[in-house]
Amino acid sequence: MADILNRQDVDFLLHDWLKVDGLLAAPLYAETSRETIDALIDLAETIAETKFLNHYKAADANEPQMTAEGGAQILPEIAEGVRAFAEAGFMAAPFAAEHGGLQVPQLVYQAAMAHFYAANVATAAYPMLATANARLIAAFGTPTQVAKFALPALEGRHLGTMCLSEPQAGSSLADVRTRAVADGEDALGARYRLTGSKMWISAGEHDITPNIVHLVLAKVVGPDGRLPVGTKGISLFIVPRLLDDGAGGTTRNDIALAGLNHKMGYRGTTNTLLNFGEGRAEPFGAAGAVGYLVGQEGDGLPQMFQMMNEARIGVGLGAAALGYRGYRLAVRYAQERQQGRTGRDPAAAPVPIIEHADVKRQLLTAKTYAEGALALVLYCAKLVDETLVGDGRDEAEALLGLLTPIAKTWPSEYGLLANDIAIQVHGGYGYTRDFDVEQLYRDNRLNPIHEGTTGIQGLDLLGRKVLRDRGGAFALLRARIAATIAAAREADGLGDAAAALEALDASLGEAVETLLGTADSAAAMWNATPFLWAMGHVVVAWLWLDQAVAAGRADVDSAFAAGKHAAARFFLEVEGPRVAPWLALVVRGSDTAAALGAASF
Amino acid sequence: MADILNRQDVDFLLHDWLKVDGLLAAPLYAETSRETIDALIDLAETIAETKFLNHYKAADANEPQMTAEGGAQILPEIAEGVRAFAEAGFMAAPFAAEHGGLQVPQLVYQAAMAHFYAANVATAAYPMLATANARLIAAFGTPTQVAKFALPALEGRHLGTMCLSEPQAGSSLADVRTRAVADGEDALGARYRLTGSKMWISAGEHDITPNIVHLVLAKVVGPDGRLPVGTKGISLFIVPRLLDDGAGGTTRNDIALAGLNHKMGYRGTTNTLLNFGEGRAEPFGAAGAVGYLVGQEGDGLPQMFQMMNEARIGVGLGAAALGYRGYRLAVRYAQERQQGRTGRDPAAAPVPIIEHADVKRQLLTAKTYAEGALALVLYCAKLVDETLVGDGRDEAEALLGLLTPIAKTWPSEYGLLANDIAIQVHGGYGYTRDFDVEQLYRDNRLNPIHEGTTGIQGLDLLGRKVLRDRGGAFALLRARIAATIAAAREADGLGDAAAALEALDASLGEAVETLLGTADSAAAMWNATPFLWAMGHVVVAWLWLDQAVAAGRADVDSAFAAGKHAAARFFLEVEGPRVAPWLALVVRGSDTAAALGAASF
Repeated sequence: MADILNRQDVDFLLHDWLKVDGLLAAPLYAETSRETIDALIDLAETIAETKFLNHYKAADANEPQMTAEGGAQILPEIAEGVRAFAEAGFMAAPFAAEHGGLQVPQLVYQAAMAHFYAANVATAAYPMLATANARLIAAFGTPTQVAKFALPALEGRHLGTMCLSEPQAGSSLADVRTRAVADGEDALGARYRLTGSKMWISAGEHDITPNIVHLVLAKVVGPDGRLPVGTKGISLFIVPRLLDDGAGGTTRNDIALAGLNHKMGYRGTTNTLLNFGEGRAEPFGAAGAVGYLVGQEGDGLPQMFQMMNEARIGVGLGAAALGYRGYRLAVRYAQERQQGRTGRDPAAAPVPIIEHADVKRQLLTAKTYAEGALALVLYCAKLVDETLVGDGRDEAEALLGLLTPIAKTWPSEYGLLANDIAIQVHGGYGYTRDFDVEQLYRDNRLNPIHEGTTGIQGLDLLGRKVLRDRGGAFALLRARIAATIAAAREADGLGDAAAALEALDASLGEAVETLLGTADSAAAMWNATPFLWAMGHVVVAWLWLDQAVAAGRADVDSAFAAGKHAAARFFLEVEGPRVAPWLALVVRGSDTAAALGAASF
Repeated sequence: MADILNRQDVDFLLHDWLKVDGLLAAPLYAETSRETIDALIDLAETIAETKFLNHYKAADANEPQMTAEGGAQILPEIAEGVRAFAEAGFMAAPFAAEHGGLQVPQLVYQAAMAHFYAANVATAAYPMLATANARLIAAFGTPTQVAKFALPALEGRHLGTMCLSEPQAGSSLADVRTRAVADGEDALGARYRLTGSKMWISAGEHDITPNIVHLVLAKVVGPDGRLPVGTKGISLFIVPRLLDDGAGGTTRNDIALAGLNHKMGYRGTTNTLLNFGEGRAEPFGAAGAVGYLVGQEGDGLPQMFQMMNEARIGVGLGAAALGYRGYRLAVRYAQERQQGRTGRDPAAAPVPIIEHADVKRQLLTAKTYAEGALALVLYCAKLVDETLVGDGRDEAEALLGLLTPIAKTWPSEYGLLANDIAIQVHGGYGYTRDFDVEQLYRDNRLNPIHEGTTGIQGLDLLGRKVLRDRGGAFALLRARIAATIAAAREADGLGDAAAALEALDASLGEAVETLLGTADSAAAMWNATPFLWAMGHVVVAWLWLDQAVAAGRADVDSAFAAGKHAAARFFLEVEGPRVAPWLALVVRGSDTAAALGAASF
């Protein structure tokens, strides 16, 4: 086994910590048992190793290429990996039985997915996007749209994308210029013709499946020929690469691959500029790419945000998994590489570098980042389950909304730092392409950018999820933190850590209270990102302490439990003190940066 | 002009802040004037732009290749760049007139060098290594060795390397296994035959110049046939790629290119595994690569450390320059890219993203890192000058020794973070290879590794430079910090920042006093790296405040001075609070990581 993640930890997280068993009593998950969970994780480990990890470097070295026909040719092993994934049922795993799905709990599904991300995030992006796309259509589409555009994805017969950004509109979706003009109706719904360019479209073109179902944000042209202003005028359209020609065959929709982006990492995933309705094809004898409206005009952004929230947790999971594999590779390297001595006898044999205090410090730091990030995302995956089953659905919904920007950002920032440390532990070797750690680092650098940058997540967290919510979900979170602190006080050796978390939680609570009591929050928003960092650290510190409590109780081996305890104490000791200074910037509305004129940079 | 660095800032640093004029009164620098300095910086800007920046991307995309003959073929533009550099006199610039040098102050030389590093660090590495190599030979070699192996480098007729590491001996030089056996004497000195492998040798093979002068650490085989144990038995040898054949031509020495390392970045610089004396050639009819001893047997490590200290400052300068160019590119992008709005009217035109508070926060952070790093390294360059001229040579020597691990590490860590921010400000574009910022980030990731990792620098700083020195140099540093605090108290708007620095300085001073009063420093050494971070931050905070004082006094435009003021206040406000928690780890001898067993990671 390649030990892509650490199976002992995965089992601990699922069973001892998050107690997945508690979910299985619900009728929704009646088909899932401890045995099926073990089998699914086994299967994920095997396919991740044999069909994803096997071409990790090859896909980096051999980027997608544009073909003479305007397609994108990718490494054949990527398509094989995606097929193996679909054939093993991972596409269907998170779907409801009514859609032919396996109805696996999100917690289990995401734990399985972590293996694919860790082994080869660029290959895993294809099925991840297809799944998110199909779930959105399943949620908002008509039965005909679901049958045509969602269900085939469960069998891997087509893949999908989400098309939001445009060259001039990245973070600012209000500025999308893609135009939709009504074009009657057919069996698949209200038909429109789309014209415009979409940028940064992952999996926008490839040769894995003939059809690709794009979900495209566009604005419907008004009676005055203009596009509506702002985000409220955004609608969502299903725009398939291939259209039925009415004679049992297919015809090309008017979607042209205008270019491939060449990235620092994540190279196996095609990243495309797509032109819709530029006139290369005239499907059904008219201009514009054919698209079918999902729901009603103007519903586009809220619909897309369902997919986006799922995608944000997916980004967090991918970032955590990349950091995690880097950490595991660094541990193994440090156990094997002999260098230097711990004593003063120069004639003594060199020791494995894991014996050096500074290497231990680096590895323990990486452990708190990587395992902490995975724990955070799996905690959120369990919240997704709790929105569907059990008695606390509203609470779960509220907590999930609050934690989503953190689940997206914290793993993206600190998973990357775990990768940075993994390189450092490898020394010069880690900087070469002979070792995976440099690629993991390049791959992970994307994650703080896509699906909403860190800055965007900070605005979402502080502006929408904390202040506009008037601290409602935030109070639910604090109650859970308090429960962990109480449990830790009763546990062996965690008293200091419990006290440290209590102080962090209090400082966060006071800061939020102050901000809620301030009439104008504009000054607080200048430092929304430091607020995100601070709250992220408190949340991860809480989950670390919670893991340590569970490790102390559980029937796990003592070296493993000692690692969880040490990591919890270390995180509180070393990372905890960063929280108060970040909060201070927000609370006092520091304008040192915001007040500086553009000419002074 | 490509604005590789910010000329206004370079001029400010040299003239208004570091007052290079004060050095020029010394006879050593009698040939240098304000006019020659301006001309040299102008020339550096021009050559850096036209001969280094011109192939920045091409050298990344077209890595060095091994040839069928066992050589390394590099991009021709690299050789052209190195030749232009040498022809313009930059090789000779830092050398003494007696060696044909231009005797330029180190401060001016390094300010010029920063442009080459910023424009193309991989091309600049060739002349940087050759210069350091030649300076070492000039310092310790015999007149014949200097004439033969150092002086041609000043004209770019050959280049040079430093060969320390071996596959099994990276940070632990005590374990070098390269063997040297005495082989008589010739006109070039005591001759030895060398056998062994050297790893990570930058510029170890290339087609820029036919000859390459290697400086090789090896151990002389004892009478018992064994190598001496530890570092004391290490000697230094000049091992040229080409030997005079005694008939007016040359013959190949027995040095074989065993492999090229393929790196994440810094790709234009060949990085090689070299085999010495493996028998491919038998120069002068005997086995082993021919090498000439420098100085005496066993002097190798102290000699090499002269070059190493110079190289460490060079690494810091390169890291600062890479971070600096990334910062400048981010500022320019943020001024040009239109996205989003600062008010609530969705119909308003988008604004340049530099108007968004979070982008300003990111840019000001990057400014404190990039400009702070450059200031630190140039301050150290001036200390090099002060070891040569003026009344404070001993003080300068002591301060330089103390600051060298910081000058190497801080720019490597924080210059990289400036590059990270530059990517983030570019959004998705920054992750593509169409923009330079992703390459700058990959290039800069090497710097925390080579010439002594961050962990090694931490041990050097706390163990050797602070504790073993009993705080001697440290007291000199604190006196300079105190002078800046006193000046800042008199300056407009810097009172709070002065008080903040005073508190940081006091906490550092107390920590060192406590550590010096502890009988056993082993526990402190567990956290030598956090000590390095803490002291690095105090030093950079001091230099920021010192710059702000100078900017307030100087005849510089107000937008520029406002930027320096804001950066100083921001660094103290945002980064300052990190210092005390780092110091606390060292002072209390936190063993959370050090005590954890290898099986618990």
